[in-house]
Amino acid sequence: MQTSPLRKVDTPALFLDLDIIERNLDAMQQKMTGLGVDLRPHIKTHKIPELALWQIEKGAKGITCAKLSEARVMAGAGVKDIFIANQITTPCKISGIWDLAREVCLSVGLDSVAGAKMLSELFAAKGGELEYLIELDTGLKRCGVLPGEPAWKLHQQIKDLPGLKFKGLFTHAGHVYGSANREEVEAISRYESRLTQETAEIFRQNQVEPQVVSVGSTPTMKVWQGHQGITEARPGCYLLNDAMQVGMGVAELEDCALSLGATVISRPTPDRAVIDAGAKALALDKGGHGLETVKGHGVIPGRDAYPERLSEEHGILKVAPDEPLSVGDMVRIIPNHACPVMNLFDRAYGIRNGRVEKEFEIAARGKSQ
Amino acid sequence: MQTSPLRKVDTPALFLDLDIIERNLDAMQQKMTGLGVDLRPHIKTHKIPELALWQIEKGAKGITCAKLSEARVMAGAGVKDIFIANQITTPCKISGIWDLAREVCLSVGLDSVAGAKMLSELFAAKGGELEYLIELDTGLKRCGVLPGEPAWKLHQQIKDLPGLKFKGLFTHAGHVYGSANREEVEAISRYESRLTQETAEIFRQNQVEPQVVSVGSTPTMKVWQGHQGITEARPGCYLLNDAMQVGMGVAELEDCALSLGATVISRPTPDRAVIDAGAKALALDKGGHGLETVKGHGVIPGRDAYPERLSEEHGILKVAPDEPLSVGDMVRIIPNHACPVMNLFDRAYGIRNGRVEKEFEIAARGKSQ
Repeated sequence: MQTSPLRKVDTPALFLDLDIIERNLDAMQQKMTGLGVDLRPHIKTHKIPELALWQIEKGAKGITCAKLSEARVMAGAGVKDIFIANQITTPCKISGIWDLAREVCLSVGLDSVAGAKMLSELFAAKGGELEYLIELDTGLKRCGVLPGEPAWKLHQQIKDLPGLKFKGLFTHAGHVYGSANREEVEAISRYESRLTQETAEIFRQNQVEPQVVSVGSTPTMKVWQGHQGITEARPGCYLLNDAMQVGMGVAELEDCALSLGATVISRPTPDRAVIDAGAKALALDKGGHGLETVKGHGVIPGRDAYPERLSEEHGILKVAPDEPLSVGDMVRIIPNHACPVMNLFDRAYGIRNGRVEKEFEIAARGKSQ
Repeated sequence: MQTSPLRKVDTPALFLDLDIIERNLDAMQQKMTGLGVDLRPHIKTHKIPELALWQIEKGAKGITCAKLSEARVMAGAGVKDIFIANQITTPCKISGIWDLAREVCLSVGLDSVAGAKMLSELFAAKGGELEYLIELDTGLKRCGVLPGEPAWKLHQQIKDLPGLKFKGLFTHAGHVYGSANREEVEAISRYESRLTQETAEIFRQNQVEPQVVSVGSTPTMKVWQGHQGITEARPGCYLLNDAMQVGMGVAELEDCALSLGATVISRPTPDRAVIDAGAKALALDKGGHGLETVKGHGVIPGRDAYPERLSEEHGILKVAPDEPLSVGDMVRIIPNHACPVMNLFDRAYGIRNGRVEKEFEIAARGKSQ
């Protein structure tokens, strides 16, 4: 059995390389500062309040959350400026949004008259005002109105609803995760910004100035050159990176801060080793919204082996015959997709130079409401 | 917006139909009692101590766990007889196994000399004895030695190790989840039992009587007719069932006790609705170990709609044009695979007749060590 300082931690376990995180943090912040754009990182990647506060300390204007329950955790830890890049349409959440808007500078997404009316009703009745950004669908085909005239039409339908205040426009070109290479990423990045800016221009021509015009995903922001009229970027995964980012050509393995430690529990054949980490630790993501840019379920740097199949609690590694891997050995795996992996653990171990420096609680794990 | 008593719970949320659970519990227990076989359900499906205790109260001999950390939770809740159907090969876990074996009747899996030596070393040094079952690979190609002579050979290599005591043989024919229909399930079920029994027979011919000869998965046990010499069955998913079990023809939708409640947050086009539940709530399983017997990411009974794509926080429903689904409506989704879905939530709501009767803590959620 190998001996390593990390062996004191039982597996499967998440390790966060603090030097790599700091490098990733600095690089994205410096890029956005250089382009004159506010950085509002999405915290669904790490889900750790301390890392969100580190992002803000380094210069981020605020954070982006996917869910109210995530935002509550971050507000509780001292984050003061939060955008929930999602539609809020349940009674429980609407009431929670009211409460949270008392505590922090809060804005939310909107893409329908029905959704707007739900929020308007409560905020008007209570005499408050909620800032919102209209979501544009720039190709992901998920939420959002189409850019251009449809967005302006929605604005006209909801602009006079009491209790609501227009703050701007946002989009997320998540279909970029279907890209096979960096050239495709660059094309989608340009398209995301252009469509969003053109829509903002319609608003401006009608004497409505969007305070925020927001775009972003890690791949599109990694290759971004900036775009006139775009004020904000919202990447998330750049902080940790993962095999999908490497597969698209927007990160190197050396930029990946998150690794999963797992232990060989069985070596039944020369070409097969089984580890104590399956889909409950690595998730099943093999590419985000389309093409698969990854092979298997993660990358094991320095080993001629990779996780070929996952069941819930077991990872089945395909191993080159001359690769030594014995029962009891630890492997470190770069996951395909960092965000769902972080969501499967209660804690992560911050490491520097191969030693555990601190333990993080993944406090927004499981916050899907 | 629809009004339903379940609306008091925010979405995404897990609902467990208590009447269906009781029916599933009774049916499997009666079947195994009738066949004269011990039932030792795998609790990785539900991860809820109260449900494990209910299974035992109904007649289960003990439970099966995948991980030590799961077993600890169950022992803490009062379960007295636990089999960890997995290989234990990390220092932290080996030491934890020693502690747990002081508390409950504990046995573990073994499939290698190396793994056996690790456990033997500690138990011999401390003067204790750990019962183990040799794992057989009956086609899953994961852990386990091959049935027949290879299993007998492993037994001879480890039988004299101090601190260990041979208890029996076990297998899990998990490749059954690659079955396209009930006929294939039946063939794998027969094969699983036959290979295991033939191996047990070799032991018996050599005057070694396995106390336990254990097989099982929900599909193979659902169609099982029993088999001479098999003493124990270890299904797990039968308690809740899911769309994969329905797809294989071993359960009906009416047997599915677990549903995910989600709310429509956007209705951008006539054929698309977006809900507030994505891969962080439904997981990404589309079939266990091979063939896909499911369409999309779950079934929505009573609606002409299904989750066609999932991103982390969004589910994109493909909707028939005349299916009414408005922003704010709740849908109830039968997940493809119950086990990973339960693992994504901290609690589940037990319902009867459409009303919440009690709240369960999913106490073994995230216990992957």
